[in-house]
Amino acid sequence: MNAEIIAVGTELLLGQIVNSNAQFISRELAELGVHVYYHTVVGDNPKRLEKAISIAEERADLIIFTGGLGPTKDDLTKEVIAAHTGKQLVEDAIAMENIVSYFKKTGRKMSENNKKQALVLEDASVLPNEHGMAPGMFVKKDNQFYMLLPGPPHEMQPMLRKYGASAILDQLESRERIESRVLRYFGIGESQLEAEIEDLIDAQTNPTIAPLAGDNEVTIRITARDRSEEKAIQMIDQMERKINDRVGEFFYGYDQTTIMKELLTILDKNDLTIAAAESLTGGMFQSEMTGVTGVSTMLIGGVVCYSNQSKIKLCQVKAETIEKHGVVSEQCAIELAENIRTILGTNIGISFTGVAGPDSLEGHPAGTVWIGISFDDRPTKTYHLNLSGSRIGNQKRTVKYGCYYLLKELDNSRIS
Amino acid sequence: MNAEIIAVGTELLLGQIVNSNAQFISRELAELGVHVYYHTVVGDNPKRLEKAISIAEERADLIIFTGGLGPTKDDLTKEVIAAHTGKQLVEDAIAMENIVSYFKKTGRKMSENNKKQALVLEDASVLPNEHGMAPGMFVKKDNQFYMLLPGPPHEMQPMLRKYGASAILDQLESRERIESRVLRYFGIGESQLEAEIEDLIDAQTNPTIAPLAGDNEVTIRITARDRSEEKAIQMIDQMERKINDRVGEFFYGYDQTTIMKELLTILDKNDLTIAAAESLTGGMFQSEMTGVTGVSTMLIGGVVCYSNQSKIKLCQVKAETIEKHGVVSEQCAIELAENIRTILGTNIGISFTGVAGPDSLEGHPAGTVWIGISFDDRPTKTYHLNLSGSRIGNQKRTVKYGCYYLLKELDNSRIS
Repeated sequence: MNAEIIAVGTELLLGQIVNSNAQFISRELAELGVHVYYHTVVGDNPKRLEKAISIAEERADLIIFTGGLGPTKDDLTKEVIAAHTGKQLVEDAIAMENIVSYFKKTGRKMSENNKKQALVLEDASVLPNEHGMAPGMFVKKDNQFYMLLPGPPHEMQPMLRKYGASAILDQLESRERIESRVLRYFGIGESQLEAEIEDLIDAQTNPTIAPLAGDNEVTIRITARDRSEEKAIQMIDQMERKINDRVGEFFYGYDQTTIMKELLTILDKNDLTIAAAESLTGGMFQSEMTGVTGVSTMLIGGVVCYSNQSKIKLCQVKAETIEKHGVVSEQCAIELAENIRTILGTNIGISFTGVAGPDSLEGHPAGTVWIGISFDDRPTKTYHLNLSGSRIGNQKRTVKYGCYYLLKELDNSRIS
Repeated sequence: MNAEIIAVGTELLLGQIVNSNAQFISRELAELGVHVYYHTVVGDNPKRLEKAISIAEERADLIIFTGGLGPTKDDLTKEVIAAHTGKQLVEDAIAMENIVSYFKKTGRKMSENNKKQALVLEDASVLPNEHGMAPGMFVKKDNQFYMLLPGPPHEMQPMLRKYGASAILDQLESRERIESRVLRYFGIGESQLEAEIEDLIDAQTNPTIAPLAGDNEVTIRITARDRSEEKAIQMIDQMERKINDRVGEFFYGYDQTTIMKELLTILDKNDLTIAAAESLTGGMFQSEMTGVTGVSTMLIGGVVCYSNQSKIKLCQVKAETIEKHGVVSEQCAIELAENIRTILGTNIGISFTGVAGPDSLEGHPAGTVWIGISFDDRPTKTYHLNLSGSRIGNQKRTVKYGCYYLLKELDNSRIS
């Protein structure tokens, strides 16, 4: 079975709201094993809506509508579908009861057009609306399925999950399950990663492999279908091993995790404390870290040593180091990392110094970065980056590289 | 002229990401006076994409594509359009230069499939990509216009605003100019602001007034149309005065500015230096500040004193202050602000201490915040907030309130 989602509402075409309903419905359908080939958005316009329906009927077994079930004049979805399919609109007793009791409860006066919301397509199985007045519908004509859902997400989402999904499942010949897993990579570009696994991508059928770039990272979504959930997961495990045999060194985590969360997990597991000295990142590393709950046992604190003055006063960097090597230097990164660790008595001190841009500094172009990592009594490590991006882009990538190098350092120290 | 937006990407059909590009493009087109009748989303599938193009050609003068311009195998948008329109793909010298220099700069290995990104449709006017490698295109065949934009929002949005919009305007018969201006407000809720100007909103025709809430602020977009640009701007000026006669006290700036940028402008104008001591905000205030170019003359630096230990060691807060009043206290905010100002010898010291959440601290609920502002030899000011939101939400709002209070403080000191 394949589906098309038609969202109805002029506010979507004006860009007043984003079509989050299509995203939600798509996720739910993927879970059910229903393919979605198209999303369509059309305004509150009967002619254009009917054209959209005719087109969707050509290419989808199931058409899911969202929006246009409200009480106002421009809510026309079920009326247009009724006219298009030649089905009558009939009053649903339960829906009407629901509406009447709502107005009784709120003490508001019920207007004529509210009664319109109790009308449903004949032969439709009604999907109860437990968070509003517009009932949903699921109806078949010939071999074409139509599902009508309300527009407000807080009404639509529970209706689809609780009533719509099972109505669809009952129609599926195959009870095939879809499982998927996202693998997250850092330090490798999308095109390079794809080149590494090109043959796997070319050969993909089931499971499928979908690389996606974004936010200085690359992810690969592996999706497998099988009647047995267990089998589907096995297929994913197998493909994951194949992929990470090639690019495993850049892999850092699954699904919704972030590289910062992975780092904090390992710090937590090993009771390690950390302090940071941030120049070009201006506090972004610590800010991201404190965005995670429960970080206070790990992050003791640190400095934003944006000026030379603050490097000296807050982090005891030697004036001659700055004179001799400049602040965009390995030596400065080392002193910052070691000193902040000593000052706050933590296991780890990490430092970021360099040129965020757009202007160059000390003759170094924007994007020149030095990262220092001082870890207990181990020799201090430094890392050099040449980034190219906006000022904030360079800061963000520097922070991620800091997390990445620290993760590797802990790995190599057999801490994990 | 009417348009259809076709977003290309299987990740959209799987619900992995929401189609925010369609919303952004729709807003921009509305401003240009171009009607949007349909949005379509189609996967990385040549056959289905071509069908979608044929359908769109039946119902739209302008088809705007977003996505599928990347370097990977499943990026097929321009190839499919080339085949469909019978246009050749030719290498664009400038785009190629841009790609080569990117890889030279980053020292990353350029793979064959990156070169593919330099190919453009023949006769197309190329839309430069200032934030990525895939160039955009605007091309006409017979009376059909096609615009190709990249998928990543940070590449697509500036490209459309800076190059795409004017390319479209040149094609519009009506040379009516559309001018718009965004007014930004902080410290007032959307519903309160709407109530204040309800009559203006109800009466709106030209110019139009569109309030929008987001990111702890409220904005009002005023859009005026006239054949004379000057006249349109006058209409906007007039409406702005009407609005700010009522809510001017909450107004802080125009268009793309932020409250942080406004603060930095005033600090810069008055040669004022600032230092910060951040507990619950974890460095977010300084991080946002350093996101702005040229801040180094103003922000000397500061500390992220996330633990008691760091408050004492880095910011010389008295141990007995913490024992007696706790860290979630006015006294702690005062010492942090005054001490960081003294340590770094700046004009201004600002401090943030409190409970980000989700857990309470020292018996204070999440969202309890104290902000301290020490300005030269003036008595230190403190501000108390009771916020309700997520951990990160509370941090963000605290940072904005810090900027807001500091702006007011400078105002009251007749500094501006």
